[in-house]
Amino acid sequence: MKHALPVTREQDFAAWYQAVISEADLAEESGVRGCMVIRPWGYGIWERIQKLMDARIKAAGVENCYFPLFIPLSFFEKEADHVDGFAKEMAVVTHHRLIADGKGRLIPDPEAKLEEPLVVRPTSETVIGQAMSRWVQSWRDLPLMVNQWANVVRWEMRTRMFLRTSEFLWQEGHTAHATRDDAMSETMRALEMYRDFAESALAMPVVAGEKPENERFPGAVATYSIEAMMQDGKALQAGTSHYLGTGFAEAAGIKYQDQEGGQQLAHTTSWGVSTRLIGGVIMVHGDDDGLRCPPQIAPHQIVIVPMLRDNDEDAAIIAYCEDLAKALGALDVFREPLRVLFDKRPTKAATKRWGWVKKGAPIIIEVGGRDVAGGNVSVLRRDRLYNEAGKLDSAIMARDAFVSDAAAMLEDIQASLHAEAKARLSANIRRDVTDKDALAAAFNGDKPGWVEVEWSKPTGDALDTVVEWLKGHKLTLRNVPLDAAPASGACIFTGAPATERVLVGRSY
Amino acid sequence: MKHALPVTREQDFAAWYQAVISEADLAEESGVRGCMVIRPWGYGIWERIQKLMDARIKAAGVENCYFPLFIPLSFFEKEADHVDGFAKEMAVVTHHRLIADGKGRLIPDPEAKLEEPLVVRPTSETVIGQAMSRWVQSWRDLPLMVNQWANVVRWEMRTRMFLRTSEFLWQEGHTAHATRDDAMSETMRALEMYRDFAESALAMPVVAGEKPENERFPGAVATYSIEAMMQDGKALQAGTSHYLGTGFAEAAGIKYQDQEGGQQLAHTTSWGVSTRLIGGVIMVHGDDDGLRCPPQIAPHQIVIVPMLRDNDEDAAIIAYCEDLAKALGALDVFREPLRVLFDKRPTKAATKRWGWVKKGAPIIIEVGGRDVAGGNVSVLRRDRLYNEAGKLDSAIMARDAFVSDAAAMLEDIQASLHAEAKARLSANIRRDVTDKDALAAAFNGDKPGWVEVEWSKPTGDALDTVVEWLKGHKLTLRNVPLDAAPASGACIFTGAPATERVLVGRSY
Repeated sequence: MKHALPVTREQDFAAWYQAVISEADLAEESGVRGCMVIRPWGYGIWERIQKLMDARIKAAGVENCYFPLFIPLSFFEKEADHVDGFAKEMAVVTHHRLIADGKGRLIPDPEAKLEEPLVVRPTSETVIGQAMSRWVQSWRDLPLMVNQWANVVRWEMRTRMFLRTSEFLWQEGHTAHATRDDAMSETMRALEMYRDFAESALAMPVVAGEKPENERFPGAVATYSIEAMMQDGKALQAGTSHYLGTGFAEAAGIKYQDQEGGQQLAHTTSWGVSTRLIGGVIMVHGDDDGLRCPPQIAPHQIVIVPMLRDNDEDAAIIAYCEDLAKALGALDVFREPLRVLFDKRPTKAATKRWGWVKKGAPIIIEVGGRDVAGGNVSVLRRDRLYNEAGKLDSAIMARDAFVSDAAAMLEDIQASLHAEAKARLSANIRRDVTDKDALAAAFNGDKPGWVEVEWSKPTGDALDTVVEWLKGHKLTLRNVPLDAAPASGACIFTGAPATERVLVGRSY
Repeated sequence: MKHALPVTREQDFAAWYQAVISEADLAEESGVRGCMVIRPWGYGIWERIQKLMDARIKAAGVENCYFPLFIPLSFFEKEADHVDGFAKEMAVVTHHRLIADGKGRLIPDPEAKLEEPLVVRPTSETVIGQAMSRWVQSWRDLPLMVNQWANVVRWEMRTRMFLRTSEFLWQEGHTAHATRDDAMSETMRALEMYRDFAESALAMPVVAGEKPENERFPGAVATYSIEAMMQDGKALQAGTSHYLGTGFAEAAGIKYQDQEGGQQLAHTTSWGVSTRLIGGVIMVHGDDDGLRCPPQIAPHQIVIVPMLRDNDEDAAIIAYCEDLAKALGALDVFREPLRVLFDKRPTKAATKRWGWVKKGAPIIIEVGGRDVAGGNVSVLRRDRLYNEAGKLDSAIMARDAFVSDAAAMLEDIQASLHAEAKARLSANIRRDVTDKDALAAAFNGDKPGWVEVEWSKPTGDALDTVVEWLKGHKLTLRNVPLDAAPASGACIFTGAPATERVLVGRSY
């Protein structure tokens, strides 16, 4: 069985990942360090993610806004924890003019130095906090819930497309509440929104839970994440939701008059997902022929490829395909119009077919003269490309039967991708490891998955010791799953009575 | 007649403009020089503009992508015309790390200076051109048509919200074609798309035409624009479309093999509209009570305000409003679901009413106990707020009759806003001016509008002389309208035989 990619997952998972991105025309290096060009198929997936996520965000009563790209240095200084924690590798704007140097080159104009340098936003808590301090006066103004879709920049030394790029696209929700309880409810609502979105829209099973102290967002009181398992067994943090307490409100001055007339600090939250999700979709659903795109986020759910032969039959084939596209486009699936493309490009049919296989179009329909004569279509399901004999499993169906089945078939593909990933996740979390040596040994093999262990939730220096030991084995603490069983034994790290269960794994 | 804004258009148009933005919660200063915060109502209008424009862009076969925020200096050096022309006031990133200076302040780390400074994109021809040079190999790859929705930065010394800000949001379309004719067709298609969009979605009449040589995009062979007339008579350039010839293709290396095997340079175009359109909508449709938002781009088209009195009747009023919102939300208008909001905030009804008047919700429905008892609603149309006696023109209608009429009423509001603006535009373009003194005199009065004059289309120094003379009178050349009558007399500037007609006006 020959595959469409030059390298398989087994041969070299990292090279395979790059090959999918390249062969599926998802993205490419831009020539600008750490920044990628997101190509139409990749950006189309992001547009689908935006549309489906935005509807959920709006349904929760959160309103979209837009805040400045630039943040003055002084804004960061107000939140010391925040600065010391991570706000170091950032793009800094120092000049506002270019001039020619007289030798045919351009240089920043020394006369146009900014009095206060500006940072290209790595995240927007500080600048949004300042706006909130203007908008929040009374308890009546709370909760205040805003979101923005934006680009952010974190200067990364080692970049990998979609997973870690200097510039990336994301949404960041920011909310302010009267009480800790209200803010915690919103933190958990956002987490659950992400969990449900990952499972249903991306067909990507995840574990939702609280990050240990060392993995918290700098300045946060509590950080929650969804963690997805890639096919190499590594974890990908796919979304986070933070309860920020009153620290950011204090730094920005977000205060309100309560119903008794007293002044109170607001409790804030923030939560975000990014183009990183696309990297997750690739590593969860991709196979050795390229991407398999879940129908909910596929820019085109069904692609029709005509098998033209430059002869008299072509006109009839084209008319047949156009009629089929029209019939399919009139259908609804997942409560939206079905997205169908009739691929009319002047390219060979086999090239087109493999192009769509690599891109992961959920259903590829091929129509030749014989199909037209018989009132049939040849149907290729991307989630099960080959039959048991290892041959392309192209099924001939009556055209009308296919139109009747198309929506259900897409739903079935979405469900089957989810089930396959869910089975892999479930099969690759071990819960039987009770000592450190066994924990280290559990990661010796290939694609080791994760281990859920009992621990005593150490803090401070004790936690640092644990993290160091893990780091020595290239391991990290992922999260404490919300739905984990209670702990009953001893902490695998400290020997103290365990209080909860935490996931350990390699990670991206 | 007392109005909702603290200043009227007659008193001070510039102050009135700022008051609309502030009182309608559209945007505000951010504390970051030249950058604004776009608030939910302003961003909601932008989302509507994006949605309607994006559908037109996609329908033309243009695909969305995303390109890097940062452009290396060297990219600008390749296109010398481009650099000399305008690429000077730009934000320049020179460092990639912040450190503490030991005195509690943050500074750019001198150890983390970039080898090559990066410019925050002012527009993306250079970086997109580089990508196109990779994507275009053969005539089969053409036309290549991409678009991105993005933020761009042009360091502006004097900023005004929406009209001229250092950072703004826009879409930029970039296309490459095999021939001049194909590229010119695309240039004109984009122009017509913008013209039709302004007229139908924004209810904003515009004049589409070619910019004179001095107003061309740097490096362009031809620049076309749509120009809208504000209520103070000034022109706002609301969208541009450029035919770039082969200059950008040469700089970036966009070459293709033609059908005969020869190497050819591609012909490129670019076209864009921005958040500036929102400034135009304000100054075309606003009145002394705030914004009047065309229904096609209003985030909420109908807002229901309950007149609660903290008594037994409230529950019935709320149920009545909820039922009404449901009935309206099930309707379609402009081929989309009608957007209705039931405003349940704990605020006084009169405050809510005036809040929605200032925001420009097209229809405001008030429901009190008497309305519920009579099966009625009180209807306020934002486009005709007062009756002839100068009183609020709130009409009592039977609830069912209103539901039946609602979609048609919104269509009528859209049409009436357009008709009003169209009449103003038509009435304020003079075509009877044939000498320079009269031209200067035509702009002496208040709200002078535009003058369309015959000219000989001078170039080079002769054009510079004309532009200087106009500048001395605070005038600019707007465009040569596509649908202008032919010229028959002498050039108003040079006395030579006129070849075409050009619009002269004050501008934003």
